Amino acid sequence: MRIHLGPGHDDHLATAIVEGGGTLAELDDADALVWDGGPDDFPKDLPDHIRWVQLTYAGIEPFFRARLIDDRRIWANASGVYADNVAEYAVAGLLVGLRQFHSSLAATTWQKDEIDPRVRTLHGSTVAIVGCGGIGRAMIPRLHALGVEVVAVNRSGRPVDGAKSTLPSTRTAEVWSMADHFVIAAPATGETDRLVDAAVLEAMPDTAWLVNVARGNLVDTDALVDAMRAGKVAGAVLDVTDPEPLPDGHPLWDLDNVVITPHIANTRSHLTANFAPTLRENVRRFIAGEELLARVEPNAGY
Amino acid sequence: MRIHLGPGHDDHLATAIVEGGGTLAELDDADALVWDGGPDDFPKDLPDHIRWVQLTYAGIEPFFRARLIDDRRIWANASGVYADNVAEYAVAGLLVGLRQFHSSLAATTWQKDEIDPRVRTLHGSTVAIVGCGGIGRAMIPRLHALGVEVVAVNRSGRPVDGAKSTLPSTRTAEVWSMADHFVIAAPATGETDRLVDAAVLEAMPDTAWLVNVARGNLVDTDALVDAMRAGKVAGAVLDVTDPEPLPDGHPLWDLDNVVITPHIANTRSHLTANFAPTLRENVRRFIAGEELLARVEPNAGY
Repeated sequence: MRIHLGPGHDDHLATAIVEGGGTLAELDDADALVWDGGPDDFPKDLPDHIRWVQLTYAGIEPFFRARLIDDRRIWANASGVYADNVAEYAVAGLLVGLRQFHSSLAATTWQKDEIDPRVRTLHGSTVAIVGCGGIGRAMIPRLHALGVEVVAVNRSGRPVDGAKSTLPSTRTAEVWSMADHFVIAAPATGETDRLVDAAVLEAMPDTAWLVNVARGNLVDTDALVDAMRAGKVAGAVLDVTDPEPLPDGHPLWDLDNVVITPHIANTRSHLTANFAPTLRENVRRFIAGEELLARVEPNAGY
Repeated sequence: MRIHLGPGHDDHLATAIVEGGGTLAELDDADALVWDGGPDDFPKDLPDHIRWVQLTYAGIEPFFRARLIDDRRIWANASGVYADNVAEYAVAGLLVGLRQFHSSLAATTWQKDEIDPRVRTLHGSTVAIVGCGGIGRAMIPRLHALGVEVVAVNRSGRPVDGAKSTLPSTRTAEVWSMADHFVIAAPATGETDRLVDAAVLEAMPDTAWLVNVARGNLVDTDALVDAMRAGKVAGAVLDVTDPEPLPDGHPLWDLDNVVITPHIANTRSHLTANFAPTLRENVRRFIAGEELLARVEPNAGY
């Protein structure tokens, strides 16, 4: 099994390919491609002898938009690999907001009387995970241990282990009144664009915190700014924004109860090290003719 | 059982007294005193017919310092009652620091390149809980679910459920090299004053985050400022400070990796509501002649 690694060389990925039983090769000689980059410099006219493309991103909608995902070979992505990282971030985001760390961090004096009455606890609350896949499943045991009940929304509505109820995505409209706080972790597809709009922000409890770890366009940014100003939600923790990167001077930067982090729920710094074990396993599986982890479904768009 | 509630009237506490089987009474007619305040306005020369004093604070060293705790009656405090609140805060504090929320919150531009490399994950780390009582025991299942191993230090060294090792407090010096991060949750006694001093900060890994949810004087503030400036620890999350409240202009306010919250791990706002179930149970137990929850040991100083 000859595998090309591109666009650059990464030690974690190269080692994983060799440990999985592959050998590193030039693209023209390769049976498979491990692509640790975005769509812009992806090889044009990928030769047919490339039977498998392994992407190292979890969210690969830019590859779909660039019409790179074809049905002439197998594609796999990194969905679920970074789930622990992102789940940890999402839990942290809920805690930052509810426990008012953003307020304490904004203060340079001892504002106990101002901040104390605004603190809420996460334990005892119900959190809805909208788009409950790998990240959501990694969140559930963390939330349970923190004293939180979970409501899940997924595509099929098939019950998610540990969720007290699971709704199919066709019934997403019902979830906004079923939980105290909301984590958006759905894939970015045409159906999920501006999933959280003005009506949804109106339907949530005005004490709700919203955490977005999916993609920026799943939340209607202008509607969120309006809802925050009107006090229709308690706050938002956004690791992804629309537009992204969020431009200097954007109104979101100035809202007291909006916590913006620059797309670091899954840090680029540790990405290849985290992905290496999955790559090693997929190389082994491809050689053995077994089903790959995180195989892309070209027709579903993720 | 006639019980005086002071210094003010609180509905949560009054209801708990009645539900536990007591009746509200003036101090001169009472068998017991529920004191929802500090030592300053505590009744002078408490009459001997007060056979039980229930304090609503968990940390009662100011009462000891004021020599109010005598052995002529039973005393109980609120130790352990607020454990879930404080444990949740301590876990949140670790996440805020490791995931660099303080850096994101300090930014008003999209600083991905600056912040991404500094992010660390909590999962995979080992956390030492120094002073592992009620708060520590409430932290352990939370930390386990977050992928963290725990080392505990307590007075006796009796193994704490869920900790991979437990040291007696006489061996505290060993713990600083046994964990990645540290939560200080020990009672404030003569022995724990400045427990975390310059030598301890030197002994910790320079990637360590320190969370103090105990009392400010358990950390030597000047030594912490020096250690932070010298890069000997990664950061600190302090819900308690020495001096407290932390005065305006204190050097701690200006350190990038020090997160200060104004003593809100256990919020005063929800204090009596959280304590009410314990008070109801202690009233029932006192009437029944049973051992009280969180009985104070006058000779141990907590």
